[in-house]
Amino acid sequence: MAVRAAVAGASGYAGGEILRLLAAHPEVEVGALTAGSNAGSRLGSLQPHLTPYADRVLEETTPSVLEGHDVVFLALPHGQSGAVAEALDEDVLVVDCGADFRLSDASAWQRFYGTPHAGTWPYGLPELPGARDALRGATRIAVPGCYPTAVSLALAPAYAAGLAEPEAVVVAATGTSGAGKALKPHLLGSEVMGSMSPYGVGGVHRHTPEMVQNLSAAAGGPVSVSFTPTLAPMPRGILATCSAKALPGAGDEPVRAVYEKAYQDEPFVTVLPEGHWPATGAVTGSNNVHLQTAVDADAGRIVVVAAVDNLTKGTAGGAVQSMNIALGLPEALGLPAAGLAP
Amino acid sequence: MAVRAAVAGASGYAGGEILRLLAAHPEVEVGALTAGSNAGSRLGSLQPHLTPYADRVLEETTPSVLEGHDVVFLALPHGQSGAVAEALDEDVLVVDCGADFRLSDASAWQRFYGTPHAGTWPYGLPELPGARDALRGATRIAVPGCYPTAVSLALAPAYAAGLAEPEAVVVAATGTSGAGKALKPHLLGSEVMGSMSPYGVGGVHRHTPEMVQNLSAAAGGPVSVSFTPTLAPMPRGILATCSAKALPGAGDEPVRAVYEKAYQDEPFVTVLPEGHWPATGAVTGSNNVHLQTAVDADAGRIVVVAAVDNLTKGTAGGAVQSMNIALGLPEALGLPAAGLAP
Amino acid sequence: MAVRAAVAGASGYAGGEILRLLAAHPEVEVGALTAGSNAGSRLGSLQPHLTPYADRVLEETTPSVLEGHDVVFLALPHGQSGAVAEALDEDVLVVDCGADFRLSDASAWQRFYGTPHAGTWPYGLPELPGARDALRGATRIAVPGCYPTAVSLALAPAYAAGLAEPEAVVVAATGTSGAGKALKPHLLGSEVMGSMSPYGVGGVHRHTPEMVQNLSAAAGGPVSVSFTPTLAPMPRGILATCSAKALPGAGDEPVRAVYEKAYQDEPFVTVLPEGHWPATGAVTGSNNVHLQTAVDADAGRIVVVAAVDNLTKGTAGGAVQSMNIALGLPEALGLPAAGLAP
Amino acid sequence: MAVRAAVAGASGYAGGEILRLLAAHPEVEVGALTAGSNAGSRLGSLQPHLTPYADRVLEETTPSVLEGHDVVFLALPHGQSGAVAEALDEDVLVVDCGADFRLSDASAWQRFYGTPHAGTWPYGLPELPGARDALRGATRIAVPGCYPTAVSLALAPAYAAGLAEPEAVVVAATGTSGAGKALKPHLLGSEVMGSMSPYGVGGVHRHTPEMVQNLSAAAGGPVSVSFTPTLAPMPRGILATCSAKALPGAGDEPVRAVYEKAYQDEPFVTVLPEGHWPATGAVTGSNNVHLQTAVDADAGRIVVVAAVDNLTKGTAGGAVQSMNIALGLPEALGLPAAGLAP
Repeated sequence: MAVRAAVAGASGYAGGEILRLLAAHPEVEVGALTAGSNAGSRLGSLQPHLTPYADRVLEETTPSVLEGHDVVFLALPHGQSGAVAEALDEDVLVVDCGADFRLSDASAWQRFYGTPHAGTWPYGLPELPGARDALRGATRIAVPGCYPTAVSLALAPAYAAGLAEPEAVVVAATGTSGAGKALKPHLLGSEVMGSMSPYGVGGVHRHTPEMVQNLSAAAGGPVSVSFTPTLAPMPRGILATCSAKALPGAGDEPVRAVYEKAYQDEPFVTVLPEGHWPATGAVTGSNNVHLQTAVDADAGRIVVVAAVDNLTKGTAGGAVQSMNIALGLPEALGLPAAGLAP
Repeated sequence: MAVRAAVAGASGYAGGEILRLLAAHPEVEVGALTAGSNAGSRLGSLQPHLTPYADRVLEETTPSVLEGHDVVFLALPHGQSGAVAEALDEDVLVVDCGADFRLSDASAWQRFYGTPHAGTWPYGLPELPGARDALRGATRIAVPGCYPTAVSLALAPAYAAGLAEPEAVVVAATGTSGAGKALKPHLLGSEVMGSMSPYGVGGVHRHTPEMVQNLSAAAGGPVSVSFTPTLAPMPRGILATCSAKALPGAGDEPVRAVYEKAYQDEPFVTVLPEGHWPATGAVTGSNNVHLQTAVDADAGRIVVVAAVDNLTKGTAGGAVQSMNIALGLPEALGLPAAGLAP
Repeated sequence: MAVRAAVAGASGYAGGEILRLLAAHPEVEVGALTAGSNAGSRLGSLQPHLTPYADRVLEETTPSVLEGHDVVFLALPHGQSGAVAEALDEDVLVVDCGADFRLSDASAWQRFYGTPHAGTWPYGLPELPGARDALRGATRIAVPGCYPTAVSLALAPAYAAGLAEPEAVVVAATGTSGAGKALKPHLLGSEVMGSMSPYGVGGVHRHTPEMVQNLSAAAGGPVSVSFTPTLAPMPRGILATCSAKALPGAGDEPVRAVYEKAYQDEPFVTVLPEGHWPATGAVTGSNNVHLQTAVDADAGRIVVVAAVDNLTKGTAGGAVQSMNIALGLPEALGLPAAGLAP
Repeated sequence: MAVRAAVAGASGYAGGEILRLLAAHPEVEVGALTAGSNAGSRLGSLQPHLTPYADRVLEETTPSVLEGHDVVFLALPHGQSGAVAEALDEDVLVVDCGADFRLSDASAWQRFYGTPHAGTWPYGLPELPGARDALRGATRIAVPGCYPTAVSLALAPAYAAGLAEPEAVVVAATGTSGAGKALKPHLLGSEVMGSMSPYGVGGVHRHTPEMVQNLSAAAGGPVSVSFTPTLAPMPRGILATCSAKALPGAGDEPVRAVYEKAYQDEPFVTVLPEGHWPATGAVTGSNNVHLQTAVDADAGRIVVVAAVDNLTKGTAGGAVQSMNIALGLPEALGLPAAGLAP
């Protein structure tokens, strides 16, 4: 195996998913695994599903531990990636699953995160126009947020084709792993099973400016996004229901044609056949995005629904896919092409 | 006990929930229980949770079985209520949980249901303006659909107060009981657990015209509704995320004030304190509606989220509440005031 | 309303369930609500389903707050009930949902809990022989543990009738609320959904000596219990699969007859008809116990399966039922006779 | 790719899981996919997670369709495999996921299945003594049942080492996929979520004689199994709690030592470190078996708990593992070594 990879933040859900994928990647050998407060623990006591690495002991997230790898995946709390990356050689590939380097607008960063802007790295959503080229040979990659992955792929073609008014309304459901392993009462199993609830209502969710950035780029002008995330009683998955007022000419068939063309060569994006709608359960554990479109003539809106696995395509899968591109490997190498269902 | 009640359709989820509520109602005695293809079965073999009635045997849904009761609850497939009701005395209270008598617009009925319009009965959502008065002494009541219950209560105050543009966007999640007991592959537990999916996208869901009717009445003019229902991995509950463009002056505080005033005397509708958002798990099994509002200044939209139990307030609870009003009993009598959580 | 009740520990799951039941109890008025670290909080922020009491503020658990009530329910961590009870008048009814006063064997207490034994109170499982009489007029009641409720009712008749060898094997699944609201990683929704796991294997669970006590009393001699609890991906419910080697003569029909006779007059215990097996979903939120028996001729064992709701019959329902008996109220008053399903 | 594989029964859960695994297998190319009543359908409409094969059309299960492959996987209803296999060349590897060829005792087959015994094939559980050798070069393989996989691996070492009395008690929970895609009311999502229930109680489950066969072989004499399966609210996974009376000398450490030695060289079986217990969520989607042992000194029993994914190691993973052995490929090739969690 040619590629030696370290994972910083290996005790969390994103880090664990990266390891699950790397365990099946034919060209990657897993090196150092690090953690914050969990450093010193046996990985198997925290991530018992990672059987091949169960006896590994988590190390501190320090430059000396991380150096000497070809790739370093960062699955750290927001705000910590910059310092870690700076300490690593420029020719080491650093793939950051955090938010730090996603936004190009420093003021948007400042407003939503409240800290100085760290910078902007090539964006790990190769299906967006121009993004794939920017990833080839890159040594620094910012993996998109899970919601922006789903929403950007759902609406970018409509905006790129001039089909919709620049005011998007998005309501998305996420599995609980999207909230991480934080010990909060509302994330207890007793609380989430059998219950749905919104959070971050009213435009305050930190993924909002990332969606605005991507959709505005597609539209060639400012697009607003009314975004309401909801927490669903399932461990994984994002179902994003996205809509915007249709512009003249945006009927069922033209809309469909635009989407089919936009994604016809993409290995991981499927516009489902007519009459079939995405289900998060069909993409669980895979790097796939399932999409479907409709036009509501009465309400005058284009509706696009996208399903992704928040941890796979929405985080770790997007990270590995971007790594493959950056390193010149086949883009789909080692990534699950089929979902785990039921 | 003064009131003798029959339940037609007692083997389904709506009928079962009516019985659960009646079992705890101090003024109701349960009489005949009927079913379609399940007639002849012991109720306990179909609804094992209804322990007090487990040994009852389901009868055929015929006029002779249903007559001789003070109240007849109909929980039948759409299109069957008219004939049954016609055969019952005019002074018997008939509470229909089906769609047949909800719509006032015959052409909307025809378009969405494809059959001749049966008529229009007093509408069993007493929290809407004027509705409670129409229910007093009524002998025929059309119980609202589960989605329209949540969505109408979520948006009617904004429209009645002239706060929002008449183009509503609604994305709602429902528990699987909303789809009934039909044996369809996508409703199997293996398929729904861990998965979310939309259905009836693009304005084709049959509850759409009912929302349009209620919101247009509140607005005093036509309101369009872009409605996307989604199926969530939980047995019960509706979480409706409703939004519309804010009109000038519709800031956070004015919107909140309108909602608090609209529902200040309602026993079952709570506008939650600021910072708290509805969760379906908090209303499970109760007749409660939990609401919260926000204004997204960037996107220029009012967002209102409502949580109800689709089977309780959304169906059977609304039915019993309406019965109480019609019969002159205390409106909240026998209805669960607290949810079952966790 | 004649009975004024306080609930100590109102922010936890047991305390919340007591309040849910009291909200529907026609003879009880809810007085003080207390908590530990949550004192000072609005109840609605912690228990949003308890809408009728949402605006109540939790007080400290002190004698002065709790005095002046007819009934005080204690839903406190194990070991705290003794001191609280001692400070309350002897004629106040104290119903303890903790373990402190359940065991009669001080050494068993000491071994499993590691603290001095507080004493033994009348045992709140009226369906056990002699237990109901001891509860009439009692002013101190120890509510059974949730597992012992299910297991004792499942096996006591077999032992009382001399049908089984005194070595019981019990494997039981519990919903996550049985573990309380403690913030532990393995109780996060992401961890429990889609997963089952055992805990306390090998006879170390603290409910074991309580089962041994009850079954030995039924058998009139020592009974051992091999008990394995498992955590299931559901919020509520206990399914206890209990077996023991059959003694001569213990065939299907004699066993069934013993159980039907044992529970024929019990309002909350149902031996299901042949061919029907208990499901926890059928007793959710109710005070019911569903039982079924089988004899495995090949393996020579009697198998009895019981389903209860761990929070209702297993805790709060048992507490209210015992209160009713102690106060001379109808035993089933205010208790849900039907489960909440689906 | 050298190996061309057909899957008969590709529209069911077992067939779908085989395809999920084959999609990631580096040496297998997927050929014909067949079905019964679903023949003629697009696979994607029935198994939307199998994105790589979504546009394949299911063919009839006939010899002419299945011939011309190196391997034919049969995922058919019990009783159908014999006729299909007979029509295939003797040197084609036929891997049967059905029950038909698992039992060596014709009378046990007759008693539990009610049809003539088809025969006995090499048994696809290579971790049992002698089984791996019998699979090398085999052209007919009977894949074990999901429950027997978990239970045999849990108890065989204890019996082989003479640690336990020959009367095993097993209570196991399964995810709903174990019941297949049959449209039965009790399998609806509304019914299974939030509920656990037993089935096939009293020794009547068809997997019982298979467990008896395997454990008796390990013990070198007859072992009885009291088996109670339960249905858990999760799509996948088996948690088997297995116990038997300990024979003299069977203390914690000797038992542990026996298990560690038995599985020390097995790629897919892990005896977890002390203090850690198996969780089905940790093996989801993987071919892993997680085990832990305890000795309950008070009750005098050895307790062993095993977790497997019923569809992976319990069916399709076992099938592919056996195929690898039969074909002389590396045993773990293409099989998921890490589980999918959370």
